[in-house]
Amino acid sequence: MNLTDGLFSDTELAEIMGPKAQLSAMLAVEASLAQVQARMGLIPLDAANAIADTANSLTPAPFDLLAATAKAGIAAQALVGALKSACGDNGQWAHFGATSQDIQDTGLVLQLRDALVILESRLMALEITLGQKAHEFSDAAIPARTRFQIAAPTTLGAKIAVWRAPLRRGLERLEQLRPRLLNVSFYGAAGTGAALAPKMPDVRAGVAADLDLGSPMVPWHAARDGIVELGGWLALLTGSLGKIGTDLILLGQSEISEVSAGSGGGSSTMPQKSNPVMAEALVTLARLNAGAVGTLHQAMVHAQERDGSALAIEWQILPDMVIRTGAALRLAQNLAETLKPKAMNIDASFAQDKGAMLAEAAGFYLTRFMSREEALKIVASALKNMNDGRVKNLSSALEELAPDHDWPRILAPENNLGDAVRQAKS
Amino acid sequence: MNLTDGLFSDTELAEIMGPKAQLSAMLAVEASLAQVQARMGLIPLDAANAIADTANSLTPAPFDLLAATAKAGIAAQALVGALKSACGDNGQWAHFGATSQDIQDTGLVLQLRDALVILESRLMALEITLGQKAHEFSDAAIPARTRFQIAAPTTLGAKIAVWRAPLRRGLERLEQLRPRLLNVSFYGAAGTGAALAPKMPDVRAGVAADLDLGSPMVPWHAARDGIVELGGWLALLTGSLGKIGTDLILLGQSEISEVSAGSGGGSSTMPQKSNPVMAEALVTLARLNAGAVGTLHQAMVHAQERDGSALAIEWQILPDMVIRTGAALRLAQNLAETLKPKAMNIDASFAQDKGAMLAEAAGFYLTRFMSREEALKIVASALKNMNDGRVKNLSSALEELAPDHDWPRILAPENNLGDAVRQAKS
Amino acid sequence: MNLTDGLFSDTELAEIMGPKAQLSAMLAVEASLAQVQARMGLIPLDAANAIADTANSLTPAPFDLLAATAKAGIAAQALVGALKSACGDNGQWAHFGATSQDIQDTGLVLQLRDALVILESRLMALEITLGQKAHEFSDAAIPARTRFQIAAPTTLGAKIAVWRAPLRRGLERLEQLRPRLLNVSFYGAAGTGAALAPKMPDVRAGVAADLDLGSPMVPWHAARDGIVELGGWLALLTGSLGKIGTDLILLGQSEISEVSAGSGGGSSTMPQKSNPVMAEALVTLARLNAGAVGTLHQAMVHAQERDGSALAIEWQILPDMVIRTGAALRLAQNLAETLKPKAMNIDASFAQDKGAMLAEAAGFYLTRFMSREEALKIVASALKNMNDGRVKNLSSALEELAPDHDWPRILAPENNLGDAVRQAKS
Amino acid sequence: MNLTDGLFSDTELAEIMGPKAQLSAMLAVEASLAQVQARMGLIPLDAANAIADTANSLTPAPFDLLAATAKAGIAAQALVGALKSACGDNGQWAHFGATSQDIQDTGLVLQLRDALVILESRLMALEITLGQKAHEFSDAAIPARTRFQIAAPTTLGAKIAVWRAPLRRGLERLEQLRPRLLNVSFYGAAGTGAALAPKMPDVRAGVAADLDLGSPMVPWHAARDGIVELGGWLALLTGSLGKIGTDLILLGQSEISEVSAGSGGGSSTMPQKSNPVMAEALVTLARLNAGAVGTLHQAMVHAQERDGSALAIEWQILPDMVIRTGAALRLAQNLAETLKPKAMNIDASFAQDKGAMLAEAAGFYLTRFMSREEALKIVASALKNMNDGRVKNLSSALEELAPDHDWPRILAPENNLGDAVRQAKS
Repeated sequence: MNLTDGLFSDTELAEIMGPKAQLSAMLAVEASLAQVQARMGLIPLDAANAIADTANSLTPAPFDLLAATAKAGIAAQALVGALKSACGDNGQWAHFGATSQDIQDTGLVLQLRDALVILESRLMALEITLGQKAHEFSDAAIPARTRFQIAAPTTLGAKIAVWRAPLRRGLERLEQLRPRLLNVSFYGAAGTGAALAPKMPDVRAGVAADLDLGSPMVPWHAARDGIVELGGWLALLTGSLGKIGTDLILLGQSEISEVSAGSGGGSSTMPQKSNPVMAEALVTLARLNAGAVGTLHQAMVHAQERDGSALAIEWQILPDMVIRTGAALRLAQNLAETLKPKAMNIDASFAQDKGAMLAEAAGFYLTRFMSREEALKIVASALKNMNDGRVKNLSSALEELAPDHDWPRILAPENNLGDAVRQAKS
Repeated sequence: MNLTDGLFSDTELAEIMGPKAQLSAMLAVEASLAQVQARMGLIPLDAANAIADTANSLTPAPFDLLAATAKAGIAAQALVGALKSACGDNGQWAHFGATSQDIQDTGLVLQLRDALVILESRLMALEITLGQKAHEFSDAAIPARTRFQIAAPTTLGAKIAVWRAPLRRGLERLEQLRPRLLNVSFYGAAGTGAALAPKMPDVRAGVAADLDLGSPMVPWHAARDGIVELGGWLALLTGSLGKIGTDLILLGQSEISEVSAGSGGGSSTMPQKSNPVMAEALVTLARLNAGAVGTLHQAMVHAQERDGSALAIEWQILPDMVIRTGAALRLAQNLAETLKPKAMNIDASFAQDKGAMLAEAAGFYLTRFMSREEALKIVASALKNMNDGRVKNLSSALEELAPDHDWPRILAPENNLGDAVRQAKS
Repeated sequence: MNLTDGLFSDTELAEIMGPKAQLSAMLAVEASLAQVQARMGLIPLDAANAIADTANSLTPAPFDLLAATAKAGIAAQALVGALKSACGDNGQWAHFGATSQDIQDTGLVLQLRDALVILESRLMALEITLGQKAHEFSDAAIPARTRFQIAAPTTLGAKIAVWRAPLRRGLERLEQLRPRLLNVSFYGAAGTGAALAPKMPDVRAGVAADLDLGSPMVPWHAARDGIVELGGWLALLTGSLGKIGTDLILLGQSEISEVSAGSGGGSSTMPQKSNPVMAEALVTLARLNAGAVGTLHQAMVHAQERDGSALAIEWQILPDMVIRTGAALRLAQNLAETLKPKAMNIDASFAQDKGAMLAEAAGFYLTRFMSREEALKIVASALKNMNDGRVKNLSSALEELAPDHDWPRILAPENNLGDAVRQAKS
Repeated sequence: MNLTDGLFSDTELAEIMGPKAQLSAMLAVEASLAQVQARMGLIPLDAANAIADTANSLTPAPFDLLAATAKAGIAAQALVGALKSACGDNGQWAHFGATSQDIQDTGLVLQLRDALVILESRLMALEITLGQKAHEFSDAAIPARTRFQIAAPTTLGAKIAVWRAPLRRGLERLEQLRPRLLNVSFYGAAGTGAALAPKMPDVRAGVAADLDLGSPMVPWHAARDGIVELGGWLALLTGSLGKIGTDLILLGQSEISEVSAGSGGGSSTMPQKSNPVMAEALVTLARLNAGAVGTLHQAMVHAQERDGSALAIEWQILPDMVIRTGAALRLAQNLAETLKPKAMNIDASFAQDKGAMLAEAAGFYLTRFMSREEALKIVASALKNMNDGRVKNLSSALEELAPDHDWPRILAPENNLGDAVRQAKS
């Protein structure tokens, strides 16, 4: 436990990825295995029933398995020992022909499937909320900023559309990766299934059918691309949410304060403050998962038919990545739902800019009437006059240099939104 | 240049991702843009033709653009300056309504498309070669090793099948990610396309059609998931090749030497040595790309409508990842083509093991005739006797304890390959 | 909790870095602060005593602070709230002039100081054990291997000396970094100490004296090099231990098995196996900390006078790094204490090599009697004859080509150890 | 070459770390080795002179060594081949008793020593410039911001002092790590120096004396903590400079623009823009080195007496880290020298804040006259009134609630700077 779990962890996903769920998932695999094997006549039916009953009711305390896991170097082995003990004489028929990693990996896949249901559902909800907000504020003019400088007008809805687009792509990616991930592992000690040959593929298919997973012919004991691909998906997602976070932080700065979202955190000593705690957390989670996915990729250099040091990297990295993604989605949802523009401050931003952000627009407008070169020269002069303080804003500056155009209207932000509204509504 | 470029770089991909190709790709974008805009009546046709001609023939020396790029913080801007100059009066119509990042990103996409053609073709070739080798050695028995200990027999073909499976999945992933990556970027300064409104989407679609790219409505200036997803794909690939490398290193150790592949590197002082230089390089490339993809994910926390510090992370990381992947595929192809088992040494490995790796098999065999518990006890005793040196191997040990079975046949590796052959041929 | 905590976690360090110890450390800081301020007449003595008493006896349940921490984005603030409540009217004088980060960071430093005592003591013990083992096996000849090929003879003691040297340097580094790390943070809201000006430096010095920490004048709220340097030290240490782990894994492979250390982990299905679980864990811990330190460095890009998103990266990364380092030291100590050579297998390695690893030595020996070129030619011919199977080993091959030298003696590993013994005893 | 080299690379350091300098450094090692060995009577004096002369005058084209390096997996070996050829008959005495890694590592150390001279000198210059700027603006009041919200007043000098402090610590660290890094490597094939036993240590000491390096007894072929520690130092430095970069970006935002530094980059389409290109580059360089140092730490898991895959990670990562650090120091120096406050904008910031940032100060002030609780209540009410727009600023709000205090003076930023001035001048 960590004191900051309320921000960076997630109760629901921590449970799904936690040790109890892990044990329960692995027991479900052993139960299924025994029953499939009994149906195929490989082990006695009575034994299989006893094993399944025991597996389904066993709830070993994680703490009790620590020592055996440390000794074996893999939790499944400690659990199999406990299961066999609990089954008495029938225990000899448990885990029949399996290797620890079969159980460990298939159990993991079951946990991940549950986690992905939650993550997908949160992602869909967020995508919808952002869609609504994008529509709601599709024409709410607000400055766009590039490289930390005011650029040109856009709308809040268009900003939100940029946040939303990668989430849609994330849903698409999830659909595509699932069949590569959600597979049973049942290949035996050396990956050849020799212990149960030639029935291993049928047993595997049976367990796969039972657990509603895929059943690839070639073992993935040592080919970890499916697992690591998931890590990439998680980090892509938290990265996209981290972009939302950094935008909200910057839009919420004291001096800008154009958008509010979430409820700010107070200070222990400065009564006026309202810290962007949730938005900052999105950035933190993005950077943590970014680092984690790099480490996870190191686990792909997996030696031989099983590599204990590489496998354990996955065990230590992946669950936290899942949990962080859940936390980020939860925080982003809260921020998305409460997001709203602060019109007065946005107006102040436009006023403070004095129209400089419309300089490009002025140039394009003037190009209709003169050479582009000439147009850009006039705009440059107007900007200079404005910056010298000689005139109050770009509009007035242009009126001096290029009279007989309705500059206030031409340069009004709402008349320079381009596709922003359409993007927001897309 | 680096003295080790012959290993870790790749001539072909270094050229595709290099500065000359980058300039050429960006010029192609400007040429296309001008022509599309002229067709739509947005800029004079003569100017467009002049711009396109100039862009297509201009070959600026990268060195000459360093200073302007450093000043602007983005190469496209330096190039646009050079292009406009070269176009004389027509230059005012170049880059019309575009922002530097539009050109930079679309150019990058063109480079990446070229690179992916090469990578895909190498990947397909490698997949085929490994498939042939897997078939060729589908029944060549060899010890499987788990956690650096001899486990049970498998075949060399089955090992290769494990190397090959993620490459197939890699081809599938590539097909899926291409539409998310190969898109034009043309959204203008603030992403709204205001400069050319309401014609921006049509210009974008025109350029996209011209360059055979997609044309998403929402700008990806600041949503970098497509780029980073590609980084993940590259690292998954080099990770899978790193697994091949580590396996070849371990199989090629002096004391094991069961498989040879590539030609070993000599030593500057030890005449007997043959170092696994290419296999080691695969591991190096895997770990470098693993680290790099983690750093690349940091670039997803992209502020506002454009973030120069985040963008530049991509520029510094992604090209090297592409080149490394090309290098890894080239090395892996060489290793795959020259891979062959060393039968004498494999025989020696089986002999040295004395059949211990068949202990599991013996247990399963005996379980047909007695309780599993009893069977495992016999096997344990046999192992003990064998390790004490009392008998020469597991077969003999079992003959003492469980006579009347044809143990040499029962425990012959070739009779204990399970699905290995089928996996190899899949 | 994680089922593998017995390997990858550490009870003692997990407690020191855990939430209870964190709360207790922060309360100790508040207690000290109140008492120092009372001594200086800044707050009422009665209040200070009450605050100190309460702080020293308060043991808030971490769970109860989760919500407030999530809201504030920093645990110290939640704790200060709880402390003030518990102090009743006197609470108004608690945390006087401090900012949350002052308390959070100073508490962290107290935790780290405790952790470093443990880590240093384990590191010293390991360094001593390895020194003893290096001496014990200083002249135990064993093949050196470079690039996974047998190179030339060395001794087990010399190998251990290579493991030990970086640990000595680690102790030196620790001594050097401590003064940069073990400092009080007490600078107030904006780092200027304005709330208590001009007495802030004296209060800080008082608290520092009380807690036996340093008291730098310039705030380190936003300059995190001391913290990140510690992360580097931890990763250097686990990296050096990971090297021990990888060496032990490789030396313990079934086919080599020249050194044993620790008790191997069994298999759930292969009775003959003895997996190098602890050695693998050292590699895992090294790679996890390597990844973590990269992420931690990202936290140095710390914005303004406090950056919640950067700070939280530290919170999520550093404690695990400390715990992993403790786990690695514990495992390494176990491995070091139980390490022993398996003479019979080492002899077998030398026999299997047939003296090839002495080829360099033969060349240098012959150079005393002829030109170096000639000498190297003879050695090359001898190697060829040996590899062709024409002679049983390099000695015999050389006897044919360069008779009248006592080749068995000249090429005996024990006569070709160079400085190995002296290195081992250094 | 990369089009952005003007920002992210550095001419001087790229040369020092480049292939020509690498070859030259390795040749210097071979020259020294031959001469030391001749002085000790190990090789003929004439041969040594010839080798040294050749080594000192040889300038092989890096390109010509690519193939041999790729074959050998280590550049030193290719170079030794070229050197021997160039020496004719004397070539047989070159590289006498050395292994490639000895030359590669000692050459690297020579390059790094040169690089550290430059880096240290730039670091000292930057430290001095920042010291001058801190003094110059020691009392220039400016808002401090925590968590992206205005916090309380500080001074620009105090901000700069926070930037400067880690640089001082960096100089201290450099002094401490140099003896662990700047060492000769000369241990021969297996690290035992057997080829030249018992004279190896004396040869090593001779070369060390000649090259002015240390000469540790235990080989560091496979103990890479010295190299990786340097990587940590580099990343700490770029991290600290990245903090300067992010602060300058934020202080230079259009809406804040309180500090200017460097000359801004223009936009290809928006004439009004001035992008913080150099400050952004500092952030990029920090994040790149942060990622790189994590990857570099992976190279510590170095197998056996030499691990080609681990070594090559260093070769690919470390030179770029050095160059990036040089680039960051160069950019930071430019920014530091040109840094200046924009007084009018700072005044506007204070005005816009209306004194809210002095809320804490007001609370502490009032606590002199009433209970702390009462004081904080008054301040809260005043803030509320101010935020409601009922009064123009906090001063006026407090005058209503707590009259008879000279609030404008009490809350004047310049009267609430705490230790800022002293910190700036420290």
